[in-house]
Amino acid sequence: MTAKQVALSQLFKTVRTATVNICNGLANEDFGIQPAPEVSPPKWHLGHTSWLFEEAILAPFKTDYKPFNPHYQTLFNSYYKAVGPHTLQSKRGDLSRPTVDEVMQYRAHIDAAMHALLTSSALSDNTCALIETAIHHEQQHQELLYMDIKYILASNAIPTTYQASAPTSAPTIQTSWAHFEEGLVDIGDTGHAFAYDNERPTHKHYLYPFAINQALVTNGDFLAFIENQGYQQAQYWLSQGWDWVTKHHIQQPLYWRLIDDQWYEYTLYGLLPLDLNQPLVHISYFEADAFAKWKGLRLPTEQELEVFLNRTQLEAGSDSYHPNHAQAAEQVWCWTASQYMPYPRYKAFDGLLKEYNGKFMCNQFVLRGGCIVTPQGHYRHSYRNFYLPEQRWMFSGIRLAKDIT
Amino acid sequence: MTAKQVALSQLFKTVRTATVNICNGLANEDFGIQPAPEVSPPKWHLGHTSWLFEEAILAPFKTDYKPFNPHYQTLFNSYYKAVGPHTLQSKRGDLSRPTVDEVMQYRAHIDAAMHALLTSSALSDNTCALIETAIHHEQQHQELLYMDIKYILASNAIPTTYQASAPTSAPTIQTSWAHFEEGLVDIGDTGHAFAYDNERPTHKHYLYPFAINQALVTNGDFLAFIENQGYQQAQYWLSQGWDWVTKHHIQQPLYWRLIDDQWYEYTLYGLLPLDLNQPLVHISYFEADAFAKWKGLRLPTEQELEVFLNRTQLEAGSDSYHPNHAQAAEQVWCWTASQYMPYPRYKAFDGLLKEYNGKFMCNQFVLRGGCIVTPQGHYRHSYRNFYLPEQRWMFSGIRLAKDIT
Amino acid sequence: MTAKQVALSQLFKTVRTATVNICNGLANEDFGIQPAPEVSPPKWHLGHTSWLFEEAILAPFKTDYKPFNPHYQTLFNSYYKAVGPHTLQSKRGDLSRPTVDEVMQYRAHIDAAMHALLTSSALSDNTCALIETAIHHEQQHQELLYMDIKYILASNAIPTTYQASAPTSAPTIQTSWAHFEEGLVDIGDTGHAFAYDNERPTHKHYLYPFAINQALVTNGDFLAFIENQGYQQAQYWLSQGWDWVTKHHIQQPLYWRLIDDQWYEYTLYGLLPLDLNQPLVHISYFEADAFAKWKGLRLPTEQELEVFLNRTQLEAGSDSYHPNHAQAAEQVWCWTASQYMPYPRYKAFDGLLKEYNGKFMCNQFVLRGGCIVTPQGHYRHSYRNFYLPEQRWMFSGIRLAKDIT
Amino acid sequence: MTAKQVALSQLFKTVRTATVNICNGLANEDFGIQPAPEVSPPKWHLGHTSWLFEEAILAPFKTDYKPFNPHYQTLFNSYYKAVGPHTLQSKRGDLSRPTVDEVMQYRAHIDAAMHALLTSSALSDNTCALIETAIHHEQQHQELLYMDIKYILASNAIPTTYQASAPTSAPTIQTSWAHFEEGLVDIGDTGHAFAYDNERPTHKHYLYPFAINQALVTNGDFLAFIENQGYQQAQYWLSQGWDWVTKHHIQQPLYWRLIDDQWYEYTLYGLLPLDLNQPLVHISYFEADAFAKWKGLRLPTEQELEVFLNRTQLEAGSDSYHPNHAQAAEQVWCWTASQYMPYPRYKAFDGLLKEYNGKFMCNQFVLRGGCIVTPQGHYRHSYRNFYLPEQRWMFSGIRLAKDIT
Repeated sequence: MTAKQVALSQLFKTVRTATVNICNGLANEDFGIQPAPEVSPPKWHLGHTSWLFEEAILAPFKTDYKPFNPHYQTLFNSYYKAVGPHTLQSKRGDLSRPTVDEVMQYRAHIDAAMHALLTSSALSDNTCALIETAIHHEQQHQELLYMDIKYILASNAIPTTYQASAPTSAPTIQTSWAHFEEGLVDIGDTGHAFAYDNERPTHKHYLYPFAINQALVTNGDFLAFIENQGYQQAQYWLSQGWDWVTKHHIQQPLYWRLIDDQWYEYTLYGLLPLDLNQPLVHISYFEADAFAKWKGLRLPTEQELEVFLNRTQLEAGSDSYHPNHAQAAEQVWCWTASQYMPYPRYKAFDGLLKEYNGKFMCNQFVLRGGCIVTPQGHYRHSYRNFYLPEQRWMFSGIRLAKDIT
Repeated sequence: MTAKQVALSQLFKTVRTATVNICNGLANEDFGIQPAPEVSPPKWHLGHTSWLFEEAILAPFKTDYKPFNPHYQTLFNSYYKAVGPHTLQSKRGDLSRPTVDEVMQYRAHIDAAMHALLTSSALSDNTCALIETAIHHEQQHQELLYMDIKYILASNAIPTTYQASAPTSAPTIQTSWAHFEEGLVDIGDTGHAFAYDNERPTHKHYLYPFAINQALVTNGDFLAFIENQGYQQAQYWLSQGWDWVTKHHIQQPLYWRLIDDQWYEYTLYGLLPLDLNQPLVHISYFEADAFAKWKGLRLPTEQELEVFLNRTQLEAGSDSYHPNHAQAAEQVWCWTASQYMPYPRYKAFDGLLKEYNGKFMCNQFVLRGGCIVTPQGHYRHSYRNFYLPEQRWMFSGIRLAKDIT
Repeated sequence: MTAKQVALSQLFKTVRTATVNICNGLANEDFGIQPAPEVSPPKWHLGHTSWLFEEAILAPFKTDYKPFNPHYQTLFNSYYKAVGPHTLQSKRGDLSRPTVDEVMQYRAHIDAAMHALLTSSALSDNTCALIETAIHHEQQHQELLYMDIKYILASNAIPTTYQASAPTSAPTIQTSWAHFEEGLVDIGDTGHAFAYDNERPTHKHYLYPFAINQALVTNGDFLAFIENQGYQQAQYWLSQGWDWVTKHHIQQPLYWRLIDDQWYEYTLYGLLPLDLNQPLVHISYFEADAFAKWKGLRLPTEQELEVFLNRTQLEAGSDSYHPNHAQAAEQVWCWTASQYMPYPRYKAFDGLLKEYNGKFMCNQFVLRGGCIVTPQGHYRHSYRNFYLPEQRWMFSGIRLAKDIT
Repeated sequence: MTAKQVALSQLFKTVRTATVNICNGLANEDFGIQPAPEVSPPKWHLGHTSWLFEEAILAPFKTDYKPFNPHYQTLFNSYYKAVGPHTLQSKRGDLSRPTVDEVMQYRAHIDAAMHALLTSSALSDNTCALIETAIHHEQQHQELLYMDIKYILASNAIPTTYQASAPTSAPTIQTSWAHFEEGLVDIGDTGHAFAYDNERPTHKHYLYPFAINQALVTNGDFLAFIENQGYQQAQYWLSQGWDWVTKHHIQQPLYWRLIDDQWYEYTLYGLLPLDLNQPLVHISYFEADAFAKWKGLRLPTEQELEVFLNRTQLEAGSDSYHPNHAQAAEQVWCWTASQYMPYPRYKAFDGLLKEYNGKFMCNQFVLRGGCIVTPQGHYRHSYRNFYLPEQRWMFSGIRLAKDIT
């Protein structure tokens, strides 16, 4: 058992426990629901994160490993075509079995087998790297769990909260512009202990003078857009954005509710009066772009935002990603003006994980900066999050940019 | 407390208990899933049947009645527009709350309130009739529970059974034709203690000479249709039926599976080798009609089938509707050639229940005869069941007819 | 050449000419457009009616017949699966070729070949019957041409009329009830020279006392329904009807337009102020049924309406089906409460025409009585027209009925 | 009348005539058909290009200008929300009027008014720039006309050709790689007489060493991909691409047909045996990307391809854009790996034309290089064409790239 294995073993335990802890407050009934095609049942996340350890590490590298249940290979495969067929994403909520208890037994089975593997004879660097990636994969799903749990609870007709105690009001934010000069910059992974393939390789990129605002856009800022009929004026919207607004009658951010002329926001603490000083969250790229245009400003590119984040050393993710912090802090994933494309000389992971990132580089936009429910230790400033421009159930917000001379 | 109330009180208790008993074998996770728009989560049935007592009887007739939860008025309303808004049928599976426990508490609340009402001072005939109808309504949902539970369990990728012990093989059926002469017959409710509005009034109908087969169509009969390329030949199909077969690539009854050239059928006992002597079940009107045409025969009209059933005194519904009997007996709802239309001089129920039947008299076909999961005491030969011609998750089968001279 | 052939030859010529005459006022550009899936381009009707003569009569019965163009067998086949593949109905408007001129040449080719056949040696009774049916088929398409031309012209953003001179105002209609007694009646074809298979055989049907109104429902009558919020009250609507109204935001009959608080109706003469005394036309079954319920009345069954029409000897169809009469007279196809089902002992046509009627006996409603654009000589009181309950581009209206004692 | 106006006047006449000439070979029936939502009827292009002159130039700048027909403002508006409502793109084929003759009269009206304006007193630079842009706009629609005409004629069941004489076979292509070194390059408009806003401003971009193939991918190259089961192997496809292939059962390029085991390609000359030496054309981004991955290569970025085109001085567009050349030459628009995003410091056109490019910068991919039907004088190497990744009715093909050291 190498020092690397000792460290991995500790990290594995911490992360696996954290995943289950996120679900502690849920009723059994909350684990299986899929109220939108992109929202997975929590039960599925618990199984899928285990499945990746089984499929990518235990099956190939652990002698005499026995799968917990052969049906799980298909059932908990997300989209890895190389592994074989998989349950359609939109059908995950159609499966009542396995039960939550059975999934927890599956997790225990995987935990024990991983423990045995990690504490056995020395593993190859490649195997260790795979384990590290699978741990980061599980952290990614921790954030997805928060997103999906919030969506599931919000879909109930009966008022439902994830967390009992309400946050305190946010103070007024002071806005100011950070300025950046023209020139070549280095973009991408700077040699962290861990990075995804899509953050590599480090490469030069030419930037023109720009400024980025130190403050995130707040609920109050966005309310002014609504009150100025922003959702009703085509001039601010991308063509596809206007079609989306029109078709779905979009009038407000995902979790805002107007009740008796008073604005509320659904949060993990339940429905609260809208706090105008809180950062705006749960908006689509279309809304972010329209808002920026309405302000006469623009969204930053992903390179600009990376340079900004590197300079200001903003700490995204809280010390603990405990849900108490949800909605209470300033951090949201910020939409960038950059579509998600491979970096120059991008090489995808090898093997099973070849399908991890590259095949999604089409029609998505990059978000940067982490958010309040991003697990501690998972985030770095080169991190490239990405979503479709109409999606908004992730903790997405806006940081504005502008050209300067 | 009148004798009528004593009887109703006893019936109420029996039926309410039976509903819960149907769900005894389920995991908590099976209660909330909706794998098809027309399949409701069992939890919803448990709530909705209680809701009808609350909305139609307790709220208007019980002094000082307090609703268990004001959100349930909308949540457990199926389609009664007069009551106000209701959850869309296809969204029932999007709601994780109330939990199963909370729904059981709701049932206990309703049970206690109904007990108090029924054992109080004398109720009007109208109130008693409403209570009787709401009890029959709950019995209807008992059959729906079996249908939906079967569909939910069948949707799992992991083999799942409702009932452990498997049925014995069915014996070969002897077929013969029952003959009927030309003339006027009386159709409809014959003065039972209870009947739905759609079975009334009794009326005259003119029939031409016909014969109906004593035996139901079996799996073996239908397998011959499949092997004769019945699903591939447009000549046997209604125009809409052919479109349905083509669009959905229908090749077999709903629960049949072809595995390594061997036919199986999913049953409440799990996946079993297809029993060729068992009555065919879970087919659409389109398939029933195509099969009859392929045989050179036809489906009976609902009047013909009612006359047949009245003569032969077939006992539909088993002594007990215990699931052990599922798939074991000969009774399935038989598709008729009759679209569901009002009888001459039809009058809908008054009040809330006006929406019970009449508004569905459009583009549905009538089924007659009851089935193995129809609750005892719920069925009578004038009973008109009805479904869309493409639906097949109910226990639907075929009894053939022909013209004679 | 038999006397029967002489008569058929004359009828053939008259009907074929009439079809072309209907299209006389059209621009070439009006011939190819399909603004709704169920609306066929006029060019297609001109070709398809010719195709039936080619496929059902010339190909099998005329020695050495050469098809005009082998592609037309597929192109102008509507839905006869026995003949082979056919152009999807909704794709008819995707075909720019053949040109109108080429279709007219096709018609001339068919006319000449039919003339040669009809004036040759004696034809069998069966062949003569087929020719007669194909002529009636062409007359059915004449009515469809009016329906489709109206829809096509109405779809233009630029005001477009089919006919120049406007009709005069309709007088106020006197309403009164025709009463009918209880008893057995004979329904169906009474031995006309020609009838479709779906009108046969004549059979007994038992009716209860009813009355039917002598007058058709007028625009003014229906306007009162609108002004009474009829489209906004679920209680009047079938469940499927309410879904249709809600999904498509239906607020008025198909061709009504509300401009600056003034009602207009699009007619073959262009957009005219709504004439309150004219019979209501172009409504769906859902609207007809809701209107009747709002009035506290009902739609007649098809048997009741047939008995009524036989007694009053209403002359449906004008002396000439010249478009000048469109909108000017009282006759519209009246929705009945009867779904379209086979009569007792129904036998479909033999051969190719087996697909003419029977395969559509599902989820349609019967209309009776003919309309102003029904060709002279085509209609009889046993005629069963049928459409889906949501369709309304045919000349459909309402005649009310009620139960009497 | 300034010299600028004299030149513009001449260009205007040439371009307007060329548009009409493209349609010379069409039947009247080909002008109004819309067999796919993105394919506009040729009649619509003839009207819309005139509309832009009317709306952007004549209405604001010509004294006493009278619109030809006030309905055309809505009818021929493509998507300019600032102008008011417009016909939905997918509904353009639902309009039978105006007739082709009326559209030609509209064109004559616009031509005369533009002539009067251009030969009147001196126009401002801004007005001249608008006129120049509107002329280029009409040239863009000339290429669209070829695309749409090809799609319309190909949709016919009857073999239809645009051009009679067939092209000669293409010679075998020699492939070789052009190499490029690392460093900063200038990208964008280099000060042409005319460029669209999306080509500006010129800006620095950092490139890594790469090579681009001198030859376009041929039909023969792509046939090898098909024969190697390229369409059946998920590993080569983007996730969205695989969904597209699966959903639409894509097996081959848009206009390829496999008849009796022999490959054909539909061209403007009709259906021809597939010429293996011709450049591949009419493929989607998904197919281009999958093909490149299958070859172990990649698509160039738009910056790489611009650098390549500038160096090799390839002449895209023929001397004459006469359809005789269609399919005969080597030039096709080449898909790049770049999503369509604004250049650094991009400024949209002012006024009406603000909606020309910027609002489409979302979920599209850039194509570069021009094609055989691109009008002479319209193209430059900084030109950014763009389409959705699934679209393929434009003349799109592949030029491969690779990283070098």
